[in-house]
Amino acid sequence: MAAEKLPFDRAEYETRIAAVRVAMARAGTDVLVICDPANMSWLTGYGGWSFYVHQAVVLGPDGPPLWWGRGIDALGAKLTVMMPQDCIFGYDDTYVQNPGKHPMEDLARLIADHGWQAKRIGLEMDNYYFTAAAWQSLQTALPDAQWVNANSLVNWQRAVKSPAEITFMRRAARIVEKMHQTIMERAEPGLPKNRLVAAIYEAAITGADGHWGDYPSIVPLAPSGTDATAPHLTWDDTPLKTGEATFFEIAGTYRRYHAPQSRTLFLGAPPDKYRRAETAVLDAVEAGLAQAKPGNFAEDIANAFNTSLRKHGFEKDNRCGYSIGLSYPPDWGERTYSLRRDDRTVLQPGMTFHFMPALWLDDGGLEITEPVLITENGYECLCTTPRQLMVKE
Amino acid sequence: MAAEKLPFDRAEYETRIAAVRVAMARAGTDVLVICDPANMSWLTGYGGWSFYVHQAVVLGPDGPPLWWGRGIDALGAKLTVMMPQDCIFGYDDTYVQNPGKHPMEDLARLIADHGWQAKRIGLEMDNYYFTAAAWQSLQTALPDAQWVNANSLVNWQRAVKSPAEITFMRRAARIVEKMHQTIMERAEPGLPKNRLVAAIYEAAITGADGHWGDYPSIVPLAPSGTDATAPHLTWDDTPLKTGEATFFEIAGTYRRYHAPQSRTLFLGAPPDKYRRAETAVLDAVEAGLAQAKPGNFAEDIANAFNTSLRKHGFEKDNRCGYSIGLSYPPDWGERTYSLRRDDRTVLQPGMTFHFMPALWLDDGGLEITEPVLITENGYECLCTTPRQLMVKE
Repeated sequence: MAAEKLPFDRAEYETRIAAVRVAMARAGTDVLVICDPANMSWLTGYGGWSFYVHQAVVLGPDGPPLWWGRGIDALGAKLTVMMPQDCIFGYDDTYVQNPGKHPMEDLARLIADHGWQAKRIGLEMDNYYFTAAAWQSLQTALPDAQWVNANSLVNWQRAVKSPAEITFMRRAARIVEKMHQTIMERAEPGLPKNRLVAAIYEAAITGADGHWGDYPSIVPLAPSGTDATAPHLTWDDTPLKTGEATFFEIAGTYRRYHAPQSRTLFLGAPPDKYRRAETAVLDAVEAGLAQAKPGNFAEDIANAFNTSLRKHGFEKDNRCGYSIGLSYPPDWGERTYSLRRDDRTVLQPGMTFHFMPALWLDDGGLEITEPVLITENGYECLCTTPRQLMVKE
Repeated sequence: MAAEKLPFDRAEYETRIAAVRVAMARAGTDVLVICDPANMSWLTGYGGWSFYVHQAVVLGPDGPPLWWGRGIDALGAKLTVMMPQDCIFGYDDTYVQNPGKHPMEDLARLIADHGWQAKRIGLEMDNYYFTAAAWQSLQTALPDAQWVNANSLVNWQRAVKSPAEITFMRRAARIVEKMHQTIMERAEPGLPKNRLVAAIYEAAITGADGHWGDYPSIVPLAPSGTDATAPHLTWDDTPLKTGEATFFEIAGTYRRYHAPQSRTLFLGAPPDKYRRAETAVLDAVEAGLAQAKPGNFAEDIANAFNTSLRKHGFEKDNRCGYSIGLSYPPDWGERTYSLRRDDRTVLQPGMTFHFMPALWLDDGGLEITEPVLITENGYECLCTTPRQLMVKE
C-alpha cells in the first residue's frame, strides 16, 4: 500500500538512508532525530501538512527509519512511507498543543524503548520544527544521552540531486515558466493585485506540460512600487499602475520540488534608471554564471557577480543565491550553501540553486533570477523564461 | 508612512501592548521576546513572509516595542509597523542561514544595549520560530539573564477578539462560503484533484463581498476515499470518482484572519454509512453548540459533543476544536485553548473557535465544521454554508 505513493524507487530511499548513516558516523552520531519535514520526506517518502504539530523521523544505528507523530497522522504515514508499518508510532492526542505536557516526552520513551537512551543523539538544533521547548523536554527525559548538533546534516546529503530529482525539478521549471506567461497575459493597469495573484496560483496548481502543480513553500511575492523596496511583503487589492514596477518572486512546484524564478514587470515605458539596473543585473548574471561549474566554490559565483555589479555602480550586500530542491514551508531554500563571499562549498554536478540577484532600488525592486543546475562541464538554466525586464506598454 | 498600512487603529495597538504588559507582570517577566509571526503582527502591525529567517518583536519594561530582523526586512517593517522608525533594527545579512554564527547573537547585543541583559526575559519556548539553537545562543550571550517560559503569553491576549477583528473574521467567513460554493459548482467525476484545488485557491485569493483574499495558513486539504482516513495529506492529480467522499478542510482569510470551515462532498448516492455518520455529526454538533455560551468551559462543548456522538455509536479520540483568529503558517489555530476534556478555559464574548468535529471512518473521512463566535448570550456561527453532507449525484 505504502509503496504505490512513493515518488521515488525504493532503492533511491535506501541509497539516501545509507548516505545519511555515513554522515552520522562522521558527525559522531548514533541516532538522528529528524524534524525538518523536507528531510523526513526525502528520507522516507512521508508527506502531509502535519508539521504544525511535533513529529520526527528517527534513524537509529541500524534498521529502517521510524516515523513518529500525532496519532491521527500515523494514518498518513501508513499511506506514504517506505518503511514497514511497524515502524510507525503515533502519540496520544492529549499531547497536542497542551501546555501541561510535551510530545517529546513520548518520543523520549520511544528512543528508550529501542535502547538508545545513552547514545549520541543528533538533533536539528536550528530547524523551525525543533523548538526550544522540544529540546528542553528531550534533555529532561533522556538525562544519559549525549547530544550532538546535527543541524543540516540531512540537508547536506540533499545538495546533489539524483537524475529522478532533476526530472522533478524540470517539471517544476515548466510550471514556473507558465506562471510567468500568465503574469504577462493578465497584468494590466487597474487590475487589483490579489486578482493577479489568484491567477498565478491557478497556474501554479493546475501545472504544466502534463504535470500537476504542488503548493510552493513561499506564497507568491508580488510587491509594486515602493513596497518592492521591501522584499517580503505580501499582496492586497491595490490596482496595478502604469509607470510602476512589480517583481514576482514565485516558484513552480512539482511533488515538493521547487523551481523558483523571479521576473520584474514594468507597466508602461521604463525610466532609464530601470534600464540601467537591468543592464547591470544581466551583465552581472552572465559574469556569475560563467563561474558556475564543477570544482569552483559557491563564493566564486557571488564574487564575479558582485564585481560586475560594482562596475555598473550598484552594490548588493546580501547573498545572491542558495541551494534549492525539496522543501516545505516556510522556506524553499535548502539552508546549506549560499552564494556569498566566504562560502567555499565546492560545486558538483547535480547541484541546483536559485541564483537570486535581486537589486533593491530607492523606489522599487528589480529581480531577474534563475534556477540553475550544475552539469558535468558547467551549468544549465532550468527555465527558458526570457531573461529581461518584462515590459507591457 | 507606516500608519497608512496598519490594519487597525493605533489605539487598538496601544490597548494590546498594555494588555501584554499586564500579562508580563503576572508572569514575572520584564522583557518579552516575541518570535511568533502572528504575535508580532498583532502587537505591531508587522507583516511579510520573512519568518523563515530569525526575527522578533521585543517588548521591554517601557516604551514602544522594538522590531528586530534581517536587514533587508527592516524595510518591510518600516512600511508596516506602528512604532517610530528608530525602533526598527536590522541585522547583517551574513547571519542568514550561516552555520558559523547565529542571529540571536545580534539580538542579545540589542537587549544588552537597552540595559536589559540581567532582566527576567520571557521566551516563546514552544514556537516554531524559536528554535533550540536560538535558545542556546541567547543563553550563551546573556549569561546574567533570568529566563521565563512565556509561551502563548501573547496568544492568550488574542483569544477575545475586538469588534474590528470580528469584522475581519466575518469577511473571511464570506470568503470560505464562496470557496465551498466553488467546490459545489466545479467538482465532478473525472476532474483531477489539483484542478479543483486551483479553483479553490482562485476563489480564496479573489475574495468575496468586495474584500480581497489573503493566503490561508494551511493549504486546502482535500483528500478523497481512503486518503481521507488520513487528515493531512495534500493533493495530486487523481480524478474525482463517483461513489467517493472528499472532505475539504479550507479557510477563508482576510488580512491574516481566518475563518476555517470544512465540508464533505459525496459524488453519487451516499451509502447508508455516510448518512448515519452525517446524522451523528449533525446531532453532536447541535449538542456541542448548545454549550457554547459565556461562562461555560471549553470542555463543556467537547463533552456534550462526545456524549451525543457516542449515543450514535461513534467515538472521536482527538480534540474537536481550537481557538482561531490571526495566524501565519504552518497553523491557523491560535494554540491556546482546545475543545477537549479537561480544558477549563472559560468562554467569553468575543472568543472565536473552529468547532472541528471530524470523523475518520474506515474508508474515508467526514468533516462538517463551523467557525463560531461566542456572543453575549450564546454563540453565532460565522458562516451560512448549509450544514450537511454535500451531495452531487
